[in-house]
Amino acid sequence: MQSVTLKVQGMSCNHCVNSIEGAVKQLGANAKVDLSAGTVTVEFNESNITLDSIKEAIEEQGYDVIN
Amino acid sequence: MQSVTLKVQGMSCNHCVNSIEGAVKQLGANAKVDLSAGTVTVEFNESNITLDSIKEAIEEQGYDVIN
Ligand SMILES: [Cu+2]
Ligand SMILES: [Cu+2]
Repeated sequence: MQSVTLKVQGMSCNHCVNSIEGAVKQLGANAKVDLSAGTVTVEFNESNITLDSIKEAIEEQGYDVIN
Repeated sequence: MQSVTLKVQGMSCNHCVNSIEGAVKQLGANAKVDLSAGTVTVEFNESNITLDSIKEAIEEQGYDVIN
């Protein structure tokens, strides 16, 4: 298991939290959004899933992953 | 038909727009959110529906109707 905290722009409300956490969950990973910090902490099994695919899932929801 | 523009607090993204416009539509009225102005313009038939019921529907979505 790997845990990475991403800086993400454009998250503003609980709907955003749900859409990001839900999209990452669909990949079989876990995400926890911190709205005030503007971060998403993802936990994933790096033998099943790549960090890039998680970033893509977040961007597909309409947000910018900064790092 | 009556048209009223309400000042609403807490709307921050397109998810908010959808939840408010959808909730008002379910009442059989029409709503148009202006995110940057922080307003919701509602159009409704005052013989079928009250402005108060529209305000309640918006508040049930988690927003504060100021006037
Ligand atoms: Cu949002
Ligand atoms: Cu929102």
